[in-house]
Amino acid sequence: MQTLNILKIGGKLIDDLTALAPVLEAFLQKPGYKILVHGGGKKASELSTRLDVPVKMVEGRRITDADSLEVAVMVYAGLFNKQIVALLQSLGANALGLSGADGNVILAHKRPVKEIDYGWVGDVDEVDTAAIGRLLRADFLPVFCAITHDGKGQLLNTNADTIASRLATGLAADWQVKLYLCLDKNGVLRDAEDNDSLIPHLNEALYAQLNSEGAVHSGMIPKLDNAFAALSKGVAEVIICGPETLLNGGTLLSL
Amino acid sequence: MQTLNILKIGGKLIDDLTALAPVLEAFLQKPGYKILVHGGGKKASELSTRLDVPVKMVEGRRITDADSLEVAVMVYAGLFNKQIVALLQSLGANALGLSGADGNVILAHKRPVKEIDYGWVGDVDEVDTAAIGRLLRADFLPVFCAITHDGKGQLLNTNADTIASRLATGLAADWQVKLYLCLDKNGVLRDAEDNDSLIPHLNEALYAQLNSEGAVHSGMIPKLDNAFAALSKGVAEVIICGPETLLNGGTLLSL
Repeated sequence: MQTLNILKIGGKLIDDLTALAPVLEAFLQKPGYKILVHGGGKKASELSTRLDVPVKMVEGRRITDADSLEVAVMVYAGLFNKQIVALLQSLGANALGLSGADGNVILAHKRPVKEIDYGWVGDVDEVDTAAIGRLLRADFLPVFCAITHDGKGQLLNTNADTIASRLATGLAADWQVKLYLCLDKNGVLRDAEDNDSLIPHLNEALYAQLNSEGAVHSGMIPKLDNAFAALSKGVAEVIICGPETLLNGGTLLSL
Repeated sequence: MQTLNILKIGGKLIDDLTALAPVLEAFLQKPGYKILVHGGGKKASELSTRLDVPVKMVEGRRITDADSLEVAVMVYAGLFNKQIVALLQSLGANALGLSGADGNVILAHKRPVKEIDYGWVGDVDEVDTAAIGRLLRADFLPVFCAITHDGKGQLLNTNADTIASRLATGLAADWQVKLYLCLDKNGVLRDAEDNDSLIPHLNEALYAQLNSEGAVHSGMIPKLDNAFAALSKGVAEVIICGPETLLNGGTLLSL
């Protein structure tokens, strides 16, 4: 099987094209096919503030009403996606920006209302791995934003980590998938405040031990749970890294 | 040669998805391959106003400064493009949204500064007709917004009519191209206020005659000049139509 590198970026990187360029250059050095998935960044919140679109929270969870969805589509599918595509093109990669609606590559449904109505948030139903495979083999580097659709004309806001892991597990049948989750820190740290306390190799046993000691930062737990789940579904490698450890470093996870 | 229908839409249609749906349904009924090109709509100006991004004019010409470009990218490449793609998908067409940066399909350069610095406005250098042909034959319906790039990482605001006519003339070597320019009126009218005064067939001689009589609306002149130029460059048919005359009507131009 051929290698497919999937890089998920988010956080501060997205807001700063100057910081993003060397990260993308490092990514392009990896041998094999490539997919990029990008999340939000502060710009969507900033734009919401400037447009007087209030950030709606219910029981601590963020709600995507119609106005918030418009902002997300404009910023994620518009500004960020096209800026990243243009940047990758300038670095010699044939980037092609995609939402889930484009080519119907990611079909989702509006999250069902139980205790909370999350609004226009999509849970992924299906990733068209055959179509994505055709784009890869046609020499495109797909760049996914975190917008999907329901096939009935409705766009949906979807978690970028979920998109990255659904792409990775869906494509694992045909490709040797290496999933890189690029965070602000260098990888999984023993001490969240100390970038030098990197754990180079984390298996499930060590993860369980660290968790039982309360040593894993709460924000990392869902990311690591998803990462181990991806490994169990056939993804060859998951690497948690930072901008400076993407090329040769970070935390390599194994079962 | 196989038929390729290129539809350019703009104006009021873009701001009203309810009005747009039947137009897209009519377009999908046309036999052959299809490309959609969309322009702006009022939303970009509205968003600029809400964001306090002033509309800059110099000698009556609109200037695209950095803030205006951001708004254009968000609204054209983000909101409109993805809404139209999702709508087409819901109608059964495998739409794929594209800016010129995606797949490097339209390369442009910043308009050179002579009397006026237009800002981040792009003049088209090259349309990658081979790449667009591969997307068409792979069953995608490309949906172009009016954003291009310079290959060096810079996005550029580009006239949607120009993109439609460059696509049409560029693809005319390999396809029998029918270019539909959908305006608010039913087509070219003898009396701009009377939608029933449609001229069903307009050739260059009649156009010259109407022009000499001052009978052509000033806003139509550059559109018609470009349309006749497209015919002289191998485009099989150019049809000026409105939402209700797209399917069976409008003004058919010939040399």
